[in-house]
Amino acid sequence: MRDFLPEEARIMKHIEAKARRIAELYGFKEIITPVVEPYELLSAKAGEEVRSRMFLFKDLGGRDVALRPEFTASVARLVAASLRNEPRPFRLFCLGSIYRYDEPQKGRYREFWQSNYELMGSNRPEADTEILALTDSFLREVGLKDYAFKVGHVGVLRGIFTEEKLEEKVENTVMQLMDKKQYDEALKMVEEAGASKDAVSVLRKLVELKGSKVFDVIEKMKVHVGGFAKAVQSVDNLREVLKLFYDSGCNVEMIVDAGFARGLEYYTGMIFEIYVPNLDIAIGGGGRYDRLIELFGGEPTPAVGVAHGLDRIMLAAQTQKASLKAQEAKAVVVIPVQEDVRAEALRIAQLLRSAGIRVEVEVMGRKLVKALEDADRRNMKGAVIVGEKELKESSIVLRNLERRQQDIVKIDKTAEAIKGM
Amino acid sequence: MRDFLPEEARIMKHIEAKARRIAELYGFKEIITPVVEPYELLSAKAGEEVRSRMFLFKDLGGRDVALRPEFTASVARLVAASLRNEPRPFRLFCLGSIYRYDEPQKGRYREFWQSNYELMGSNRPEADTEILALTDSFLREVGLKDYAFKVGHVGVLRGIFTEEKLEEKVENTVMQLMDKKQYDEALKMVEEAGASKDAVSVLRKLVELKGSKVFDVIEKMKVHVGGFAKAVQSVDNLREVLKLFYDSGCNVEMIVDAGFARGLEYYTGMIFEIYVPNLDIAIGGGGRYDRLIELFGGEPTPAVGVAHGLDRIMLAAQTQKASLKAQEAKAVVVIPVQEDVRAEALRIAQLLRSAGIRVEVEVMGRKLVKALEDADRRNMKGAVIVGEKELKESSIVLRNLERRQQDIVKIDKTAEAIKGM
Repeated sequence: MRDFLPEEARIMKHIEAKARRIAELYGFKEIITPVVEPYELLSAKAGEEVRSRMFLFKDLGGRDVALRPEFTASVARLVAASLRNEPRPFRLFCLGSIYRYDEPQKGRYREFWQSNYELMGSNRPEADTEILALTDSFLREVGLKDYAFKVGHVGVLRGIFTEEKLEEKVENTVMQLMDKKQYDEALKMVEEAGASKDAVSVLRKLVELKGSKVFDVIEKMKVHVGGFAKAVQSVDNLREVLKLFYDSGCNVEMIVDAGFARGLEYYTGMIFEIYVPNLDIAIGGGGRYDRLIELFGGEPTPAVGVAHGLDRIMLAAQTQKASLKAQEAKAVVVIPVQEDVRAEALRIAQLLRSAGIRVEVEVMGRKLVKALEDADRRNMKGAVIVGEKELKESSIVLRNLERRQQDIVKIDKTAEAIKGM
Repeated sequence: MRDFLPEEARIMKHIEAKARRIAELYGFKEIITPVVEPYELLSAKAGEEVRSRMFLFKDLGGRDVALRPEFTASVARLVAASLRNEPRPFRLFCLGSIYRYDEPQKGRYREFWQSNYELMGSNRPEADTEILALTDSFLREVGLKDYAFKVGHVGVLRGIFTEEKLEEKVENTVMQLMDKKQYDEALKMVEEAGASKDAVSVLRKLVELKGSKVFDVIEKMKVHVGGFAKAVQSVDNLREVLKLFYDSGCNVEMIVDAGFARGLEYYTGMIFEIYVPNLDIAIGGGGRYDRLIELFGGEPTPAVGVAHGLDRIMLAAQTQKASLKAQEAKAVVVIPVQEDVRAEALRIAQLLRSAGIRVEVEVMGRKLVKALEDADRRNMKGAVIVGEKELKESSIVLRNLERRQQDIVKIDKTAEAIKGM
């Protein structure tokens, strides 16, 4: 662990303010959870690697407790216990220090800082896309110029394991080995667990498949997993998430890695990490975890989230000589009226955010009336209604939720119109 | 320990922002120290009460570590190790969670939050006054209307103990007993340690002496301790600190308590706590600790500081229905040219801060030229030079440090002039 002297602390706090600003712009509400939690909670789905590196001790009451090694278990606990009746979706943000007893190395300390964003209640790809886009916004806002996303999908590998009837414990160990890139050991274990030759052969092709031609790689994944229905579904899901991402105007360097696994056991869908040159460890990562809230006794709640490593981002920003500026905030919802216009809705949302407006995107696929009711209930200022008809005129419908009136507005005049509301 | 749901978290973060804003306005630079520190460091001067309530454990390397029960030991360690050559004075700010294994009660949890301000390098009363004034500013900024300072001076009691040649260990135990208001046990121990009848009689008068007529109480203290030179010095010091406080325009409810002691052993001078109605525990407290930096191997560095209990302040703000607003910032130094005008300088500094200007007051008693050199070195924007001559015309000299030119400006036009710089 280390101190931050004033100059470093200033940069760190600046990055924290940006993280909080991004939370505001995207409609994530901040919560605070304790640094010390029951060991049982923290270890439930952490994965062996993380479990073995926790700061574990007994408190004065004799209970096994530990310093949190990540936020998601705490957030899931809180959602299961205290936010059962919160209307879905809801977005939670938390920021603070976390603890792992790793060997110190460049950019890795035993106390480090994360900003953590969890979008709860939606199982739709636009939710996954939002988390990717938010991450991209944050890194841009911090001033990073050179970074790349690494993306995969746990459902592709787990889809095969499930159809091959592997035990969950074996599955988890295999995923841990893959996370450490010990592919031979992983495949050997799959074989010994009784998987078919076909499955092992598909897995071997997958772990060798990665590349920056995103949709080419995805097509190849689909060809490889042809015989495994659940894996095919997962590949389709990954394609949809990334298509929304690019079509909505995001433009980042990306590697799709078909054999990609992450150390935490709770992921069920798309997973990703972000890398910068000259730093071997990820500056952030996340993914979809649809069953964790249930595990902690809550309502079944699909969820997707990301954690950004703030001190690593600080290191990257310093290396890349990033310059940093702040922005203003407002609160509207962007609602796509048809499935076809979701990418356009996300693009418009980004456009508004870049003008400093706080924007939440409707990601539940609800009908317009329901979405507007929800926006009303949550006291939003306005709604940007994105429909095919208006898009043909490069316009949207801007609804003032306070005055209950609406106008057709050109997309490029929307930010101005919202600020004038 | 507990969670903060979004609405509570929002209030907490708002108060944190105010604390940080106050740090900016007063020129305190933020640092970040670890939550986990060596037990030896944290226990060195914590006092038995705090020591027994630490979250103590062994890390995976077998070292005795604990969760910090307060910030000052960490700050002192950092100053001794990393800020040896920092020009004096310097002001440090930190904000975060601290841990004590207390029985939970109203406003008291095992994880709680503090904003911590330490003014290092000055042994002068205006430094003590600044810490009191900053605390008052912060509570006003948060919107608290109803609070009272309780003030005492460790040097009065310790001055008597020292002249009576009590062992340090006995002294510390007596102070702990007094902190818990177990005056009879405390006095008995002093007697048994061989103190004179006179000393015990003086101590008995002191522990019974307190009141809100601040300077009356101080005069009585002085009469009581007449025979003990060090105690007399301490009473004089306390009077000077509080006179500066009131003369600079601060106006708060205050109790002077001659038998007041605090749980931490490192205090050497003025000590204080802040109380609000309907909450038995202090919402903040601090004091002077002139020997702690030395104890951790640093240069002898007089220091005075305060910790504000943010979650308790939140509770008080909610009870008092405080409404909260933000302010803008700039950076100037206020330099009193003669000793006689220090109160006026502090008053002007407060005036400027209330106009949103970041202000540091010269508290080293340095000559004008030295103080300006220091301001230059630290890239300050301007200097407000407060001298007798100009004060007669209700004016100050405002120096633009960038353009190296200066003007005589009416006090009530100074904020405007600085904003126009």
